[in-house]
Amino acid sequence: MEFDGRKRVVIENLQPSLECGRYPVKRCEGELVEVRVDIFCDSHDELGAVLLFRREEQADWESLPLYHKGNDRWENAFVVSEPGRYFFTVRAWVDHFATWQHFLTKKFNAGQDISVDLKVGSILLEQASRRVPSEFSVPLLDRARDLLSASEAAAAVLLATDKEITAMMSLYPDLSLAVEYSPALEIQVDSKKAVFSTWYELFPRSTGSGSHGTFRDCERRLPEIAAMGFDVLYLPPIHPIGFTNRKGRNNTTVSEEGDPGSPWAIGSSFGGHKDIEPQLGSMEDFVGLINAAASYGIEVAMDIAFQCSPDHPYVKEHPEWFKTRPDGSIQYAENPPKRYEDIVPFDFECEEWRSLWEELESVVLFWIEKGVRIFRVDNPHTKPFAFWEWLISRIRKRYPEVIFLSEAFTRPKVMYRLAKIGFNQSYTYFTWRNTKEELTNYFNELTKGSHVEYFRPNLWPNTPDILPEYLQIGGVKASAVRLVLAATLSSSYGIYGPVFENGVVDALPGTEEYRDAEKYEIKNWVEKKGGEELRDLIKRVNQARRENPSLQQIRNLRFYPVDNEYLLFYGKATSDLSNIVLVVVNLDPFHPQSGTLELPLQDLSVSPGQPLFLDDLLSGERFVWSGERSRVTLDPQRSPALLLSVQRQLRQEGQYEYY
Amino acid sequence: MEFDGRKRVVIENLQPSLECGRYPVKRCEGELVEVRVDIFCDSHDELGAVLLFRREEQADWESLPLYHKGNDRWENAFVVSEPGRYFFTVRAWVDHFATWQHFLTKKFNAGQDISVDLKVGSILLEQASRRVPSEFSVPLLDRARDLLSASEAAAAVLLATDKEITAMMSLYPDLSLAVEYSPALEIQVDSKKAVFSTWYELFPRSTGSGSHGTFRDCERRLPEIAAMGFDVLYLPPIHPIGFTNRKGRNNTTVSEEGDPGSPWAIGSSFGGHKDIEPQLGSMEDFVGLINAAASYGIEVAMDIAFQCSPDHPYVKEHPEWFKTRPDGSIQYAENPPKRYEDIVPFDFECEEWRSLWEELESVVLFWIEKGVRIFRVDNPHTKPFAFWEWLISRIRKRYPEVIFLSEAFTRPKVMYRLAKIGFNQSYTYFTWRNTKEELTNYFNELTKGSHVEYFRPNLWPNTPDILPEYLQIGGVKASAVRLVLAATLSSSYGIYGPVFENGVVDALPGTEEYRDAEKYEIKNWVEKKGGEELRDLIKRVNQARRENPSLQQIRNLRFYPVDNEYLLFYGKATSDLSNIVLVVVNLDPFHPQSGTLELPLQDLSVSPGQPLFLDDLLSGERFVWSGERSRVTLDPQRSPALLLSVQRQLRQEGQYEYY
Repeated sequence: MEFDGRKRVVIENLQPSLECGRYPVKRCEGELVEVRVDIFCDSHDELGAVLLFRREEQADWESLPLYHKGNDRWENAFVVSEPGRYFFTVRAWVDHFATWQHFLTKKFNAGQDISVDLKVGSILLEQASRRVPSEFSVPLLDRARDLLSASEAAAAVLLATDKEITAMMSLYPDLSLAVEYSPALEIQVDSKKAVFSTWYELFPRSTGSGSHGTFRDCERRLPEIAAMGFDVLYLPPIHPIGFTNRKGRNNTTVSEEGDPGSPWAIGSSFGGHKDIEPQLGSMEDFVGLINAAASYGIEVAMDIAFQCSPDHPYVKEHPEWFKTRPDGSIQYAENPPKRYEDIVPFDFECEEWRSLWEELESVVLFWIEKGVRIFRVDNPHTKPFAFWEWLISRIRKRYPEVIFLSEAFTRPKVMYRLAKIGFNQSYTYFTWRNTKEELTNYFNELTKGSHVEYFRPNLWPNTPDILPEYLQIGGVKASAVRLVLAATLSSSYGIYGPVFENGVVDALPGTEEYRDAEKYEIKNWVEKKGGEELRDLIKRVNQARRENPSLQQIRNLRFYPVDNEYLLFYGKATSDLSNIVLVVVNLDPFHPQSGTLELPLQDLSVSPGQPLFLDDLLSGERFVWSGERSRVTLDPQRSPALLLSVQRQLRQEGQYEYY
Repeated sequence: MEFDGRKRVVIENLQPSLECGRYPVKRCEGELVEVRVDIFCDSHDELGAVLLFRREEQADWESLPLYHKGNDRWENAFVVSEPGRYFFTVRAWVDHFATWQHFLTKKFNAGQDISVDLKVGSILLEQASRRVPSEFSVPLLDRARDLLSASEAAAAVLLATDKEITAMMSLYPDLSLAVEYSPALEIQVDSKKAVFSTWYELFPRSTGSGSHGTFRDCERRLPEIAAMGFDVLYLPPIHPIGFTNRKGRNNTTVSEEGDPGSPWAIGSSFGGHKDIEPQLGSMEDFVGLINAAASYGIEVAMDIAFQCSPDHPYVKEHPEWFKTRPDGSIQYAENPPKRYEDIVPFDFECEEWRSLWEELESVVLFWIEKGVRIFRVDNPHTKPFAFWEWLISRIRKRYPEVIFLSEAFTRPKVMYRLAKIGFNQSYTYFTWRNTKEELTNYFNELTKGSHVEYFRPNLWPNTPDILPEYLQIGGVKASAVRLVLAATLSSSYGIYGPVFENGVVDALPGTEEYRDAEKYEIKNWVEKKGGEELRDLIKRVNQARRENPSLQQIRNLRFYPVDNEYLLFYGKATSDLSNIVLVVVNLDPFHPQSGTLELPLQDLSVSPGQPLFLDDLLSGERFVWSGERSRVTLDPQRSPALLLSVQRQLRQEGQYEYY
């Protein structure tokens, strides 16, 4: 397209966008995309503008008018109805006819002679008659003639500006010098679960009674998990576990007879990433588990750990994908002086990187074909960013509903980059953020800046690798605090379930590692019952999440003031305020704490004199508050938090029919 | 270049940049460009990185190392030594040798066996020996051998990590998988005057005594203007003025015999944009004025007003550049219901826009060839942005020292856009910002966000078109306040001089227009002396600007607290703190105002116990302050402001030689 200096319109600052369009922003199916853009041109002409959008597969743009909101800012919004890639852009032009109408009216009102102006308008209409569909040509030509033959100026001005002519002309503007923002911006539209999900992690091998558990044992746990309100069941790797250098209990380098090894040491003579550990059952059993889970509204999430045990078939079949040391051995994983002798990493700088990438893609496709749609990716930050960007975009092209959770506990820029290049959800630093200041700063960072456009926090109070100090010290009461925070600060959260609900907080001294960690041994959770208190809390919290749409979003989080360092006060509301939840959490698991809340009446559209009715979704207690402040006391022996559903509008006498 | 999936390094967020590189950031000759960038890769490898930069004309990059400052942020800086276009980018790579050194040391310190690692290192050295200049090959091969034959591990580690081998290997890293940020970012490097300039505007026709002044009369005013400390003399258009529809006194539509007309109605039978109004003198006289001004350190700035009087030769010779109305007349300028019958605008949407653009470029080049280097562009926002971007980049290519000042008093996004596309300085809303809150908000907007990278405010207390209400009401004392603000809030400012220094504040009632405006009549400023008070203040203020480098910058402005709404307290310092000026302005031109300043001791690197010596550059008064607060009183009858030069470091006994 040749440069045309007559194109005078400027389109700037099209939003939402991330790094000027280098990465797509993320939305979820059914969401409204609110578009804002600056449009202007030199001089004082009137402008016209439309918002153009399409799903990747659509050939043609859909079009919506853009509205000028003042200060050269134009806006409108569109709905992205299904998972996939969407594009949007803006087209704008100088509207000579509207400018002429505007000027004509001003001149007429000022009593100036408009005879020459009417001739100008008549020419504009004639020109328009040549570009409109034939049925509109005649009316336009008629109007062009009528303008000139009008008995008096006032009549001509009416003919020049009435609704009919304005509508017709704005339907067929002169686009010969229109400008389009380019390239169009991309939106990654994800499935609903990418935004709102409730995860339960368990080792299927620990679901048996006494011996090595199986997928069938696992199926038997589904009713309980569903009753607690979880909708994702995440399993650590289910593949054959290597024997060479298998880790023993408590991560010892020598295993004993019967030690099952870490599930992340993938591959043995029984197969690799496309196979199943024989002790867990068959492929049919696994598909059976997926289907059984689905009947409870639960999706099975699989672990993607792209690394091998030394016994993995790849090591023999594809030595070109690994680094060979000068002594002929294959390089094992290390972060000196730490050594992971049971694991060999792929060498992503190998000459045969193309075949390696393709094989790894085939692993993901293999499990998608078995019915898996959610993948928790282990340590993505130890594989190249370019690989993930390629892999996720290829998978999304065919299966846009697939969800990848990034398990990268590493430096902030690395974590953010992984989210930018396509991961739908991410682990976070929540696990180590405990104080009011830490939580407020971190969640403001995640929800207020540009990160909210692409980084979706999935909050975990614990994982098989991490038993945080706060839980070690605070026990069950601390677990309760962390559960409420995880479940309400973000819309996705998860627990490493059996350990969490049973209140296990036993660590190896001076570490955040579980003593007798399940990573290296088989547990028998079925018999170790207990933890009714936590299970009950989990149930209530998850029910509140399901029933309150405001808790199913991320970017609506707002912190509010309360005059006690151990109380955290925040709220979430839907944009129409039809659902509002206020949360007060006592961060002190040992002592009752009291404080005065400053109620966000303005955010709630409530006047200070109006009463607020509140239901605590945890205790069932009810409150009526009025005024701008309210005093609360939270006793950890009774409840870690208030989860207050707000009744904003109460009927008054005038709203009853019989009034 | 084919995609190589083995390139693992990521380069993000290279700064300074504007809209991801769409526009250049601006710097001035001799300035240091501080580069910041995020560089990281997957896993735990060591990285290497260099900053690359060049002047547009240079074929090869100059290179500087980048230093890791933590949190994946790398930094360094380079100097842009002369006006023109510069480019910079970043190259980064995984440094396998450094990674190996790092891991080797850790393993050795942990007492692990390193024999295989030494073999790995030896191979890395052999590989390096093949890419280095021949004189380095042998030492590298020697070292590769020595590593393997070292008598013990400790000796080998020393050989692997000593300074010599580290330097050699970091000089010749393996760049086969290096990544370069692309495209490189651009810097518009301007002449010093683009940042620091002091403007005096006068109508040369009013410099005579009694009759129409000439360039020679104008020359006679130079010593005074220089004595007041101005270094730019800006003249309204000097071209022949049209006769048709010439405006009379006070902007009446009918002129009388002898009315000189508005200089912005350019063109008559005497010529157009490349000619000189005969009553002002000859082209030689004009060049004489330029040279005479230069001998006083003053540059003549010319007005570029791309519009015509109906008598302009272009109208007859190039009717294709104008809009013809249906009655055969040429469309005059209008903003209905306002009409500017003495002016016809170019039609930038005409078919012959190319020849129009080229002719207008030739106008600028014509005056550059006469010696003009500064252009004040009249109403650039009524000509297309694309035209200015094209024009300024073409001119800068040949004359990078040329300065364009944008006279666009219009909506903020339009003003910012003009600066982004190349204008070196811009008029601002300063003219209408009077209160403490207004000034603080506006100058924080200009100096704290991204605008400071490209928008250089040139502050005008008045112009021939604008006599602000504050001056109308406050008179000479208000003029003094506005002068100090203009001269110290930004590094460039100007006054519409004779009117300002003589304290003329007579407006047409209910408007901001001067009564008997000089735009439409000839004044005789030579005889109208007076205004010693303001002239003296101007002299002192401009001297302070010349002598204090901190006042010659824009982005170093900081506001500080003072507990009186009529006192404005701010300061500027050079980055090495060798020059610091604190300013306190009394915004009330009628009454004395007192307040307590909170001194920015931290910004000044002063401890609360240390004494501060201060010289008031306006009154000559001296102060010694200590502690964090100081009480001041400013009486408009004595002085509008304190302009305090700060002596930060006082010698103490230990710093004398005889101590």
